[in-house]
Amino acid sequence: MRVGILGGGQLARMMAAAGIELGMEFVVLDPSPDACAGRFAELVTAAWQDATGAERLLACDRLTCDFENVPAEVLDALSASLPVRPGPAAFAAAQDRLVEKRLFRELGIPVPDFFAIESRPDLLAALEQIGLPAVLKTRRMGYDGKGQAVLRSSEDLEPAWQALGGQPLILEAWVPFEHECAITAVRSSGGEIRHYPLSWTVHQDGILRLALAPAPVDEAVAAQAREYVDRLLERLDYVGCLTLELFAGPFGLMANEFAPRVHNSAHWTIEGSVTSQFENHLRAVCDLPLGATDMLGHALMFNWIGAMPDPGLLLSVPGLAWHDYGKQARPGRKLGHATLLAAHPAGLNEAVRAMRPLLDTQTASLLTGAITPEG
Amino acid sequence: MRVGILGGGQLARMMAAAGIELGMEFVVLDPSPDACAGRFAELVTAAWQDATGAERLLACDRLTCDFENVPAEVLDALSASLPVRPGPAAFAAAQDRLVEKRLFRELGIPVPDFFAIESRPDLLAALEQIGLPAVLKTRRMGYDGKGQAVLRSSEDLEPAWQALGGQPLILEAWVPFEHECAITAVRSSGGEIRHYPLSWTVHQDGILRLALAPAPVDEAVAAQAREYVDRLLERLDYVGCLTLELFAGPFGLMANEFAPRVHNSAHWTIEGSVTSQFENHLRAVCDLPLGATDMLGHALMFNWIGAMPDPGLLLSVPGLAWHDYGKQARPGRKLGHATLLAAHPAGLNEAVRAMRPLLDTQTASLLTGAITPEG
Repeated sequence: MRVGILGGGQLARMMAAAGIELGMEFVVLDPSPDACAGRFAELVTAAWQDATGAERLLACDRLTCDFENVPAEVLDALSASLPVRPGPAAFAAAQDRLVEKRLFRELGIPVPDFFAIESRPDLLAALEQIGLPAVLKTRRMGYDGKGQAVLRSSEDLEPAWQALGGQPLILEAWVPFEHECAITAVRSSGGEIRHYPLSWTVHQDGILRLALAPAPVDEAVAAQAREYVDRLLERLDYVGCLTLELFAGPFGLMANEFAPRVHNSAHWTIEGSVTSQFENHLRAVCDLPLGATDMLGHALMFNWIGAMPDPGLLLSVPGLAWHDYGKQARPGRKLGHATLLAAHPAGLNEAVRAMRPLLDTQTASLLTGAITPEG
Repeated sequence: MRVGILGGGQLARMMAAAGIELGMEFVVLDPSPDACAGRFAELVTAAWQDATGAERLLACDRLTCDFENVPAEVLDALSASLPVRPGPAAFAAAQDRLVEKRLFRELGIPVPDFFAIESRPDLLAALEQIGLPAVLKTRRMGYDGKGQAVLRSSEDLEPAWQALGGQPLILEAWVPFEHECAITAVRSSGGEIRHYPLSWTVHQDGILRLALAPAPVDEAVAAQAREYVDRLLERLDYVGCLTLELFAGPFGLMANEFAPRVHNSAHWTIEGSVTSQFENHLRAVCDLPLGATDMLGHALMFNWIGAMPDPGLLLSVPGLAWHDYGKQARPGRKLGHATLLAAHPAGLNEAVRAMRPLLDTQTASLLTGAITPEG
């Protein structure tokens, strides 16, 4: 089975690493010649719309994406020739925050109040309704906190409009959440769905820093998250892994956004689950039976951003697994991640204590904060 | 860290797959241009003694082997320039069954009675001592049951001598074992040793078919195996993973042979242990802290030999992990393996029952036999 992947970052790389064990071969299309998935795949360096690049993908049996902003029309065109999984409809919805929010609302999944913003008067009118704080976001091309501004006081309006105005926007009410969380589920072409446990996630400057799984929440909350993700998967006739990001608080759960692909918040599944999200995504895409999503312990995943630490310092921590994506270091860039696996939450606490002196202050305090919340 | 590997089979491939996650790069030297480790490494196609090939390896930071029959003099020459781990002494001992057996005996590790055989009179004299059945083996280049003949009656003598005579041989007493087993341990350059649990192994036609871990034996037996492997590791000032293969029976444990490398009987460590043998071998070779060898469940590994089955049939079995080495099919060739992981031995039983109808008769009966021995 030959699988084409649009986008050649670490998600494609980890998919390929998993799929090679299943006997699959990979072709990765990416505009950058040093896309890190090239380590495990034939790399085609071309723009998304490049006809020659697309032609190379047509020799594959299946197509999938590691990037949710691959133009939906490119996927549409390719899907005339071979199965593109998940399909273009999921991308069309995920690529436009307004379409996405409307879909959530239509499916009965609670969302923060929102308004479409085309002009400055739109923004002022919406703020009258929503009040402050609120979040102004571009409808398209947002990821890792890019293309958004938090409006805390009326003084924030002008700089936000200067930065983001002139393109389709959405204004969202600020959600007074206690935690962010994410649920990843996989759906087969036959409609079978399997869920990974809910993860707690911690972002900083809009970038995911940590994921803790299973999230220490009531089973009713976890069941609600599964129910919401199921509605999305079924409406989109989805094939593969999908991650739904949620806000959790006294209001229950509220959807933030979804990603039509494998997701950073579920990287812990490599060590923490019987079958990783990467393998399960490919099993679904290639019509193989889905694998078990049971956990093998309690997992805490954290990203290495901007710089890779020396593994020699950290590999002595018991249960620590290391993933270096082989990327050039650059500020704000995700270069790798590590996952701690322990039989009990207390084991995670112990490992984090052991690591504290070995980490930069910021990562150390994030880690400690994540696993010892409110006791 | 750049690691050179002499030998580019599936062992090198699985080492490279593990090491890439740690940020390592690999150069693999193999006489065959389609060595399967080339999927994850820069492949140098050259004979072992080829000077140009060796030169390419000199640019590495560390050298290790995936094949115990790399000529010890090649390793000797290379070790003048960079750390070769494990060192040439381990290979010299493992490559000659007579030297190996003498080393076991010297270390107080029980072995079957044995005699060096240079001539037909040597053989007849040795048989007088040992009796029948006995096993005649070449001293060198034996693996996967090649280069040996079982002598059950006096009629077997002549054909065995015709097949094997004219080179240095060893005659070993037949051991009436109940089970074969294997223990893999890893030793760091600082002398720290960690053990994986003992595996039960099943061979057929001299080729490993199955490994079950942890072996259902008394703790005293497991402790004895650890003690024996420690003696070897320390005497050889060994760095990396070593596997000691043993016979188990009413006589206790008796050494069969050791392999100075990662080993097929411990492939289950990929899913079954916190840190796989492949990663721990590289951690030792590269002076990184050793990883935990704790098990995550009960594991049963079986090889795909000669043909890869259709994964679509088998991947529905819960807890089954698949490894396709990407090799051309050929009778008797190891093409891949699968590992079942379950929380309890009963879970393995259940999985094997589920698989039975999906397997060829021979594999099915081997699997069933392995996990339901004497109840």
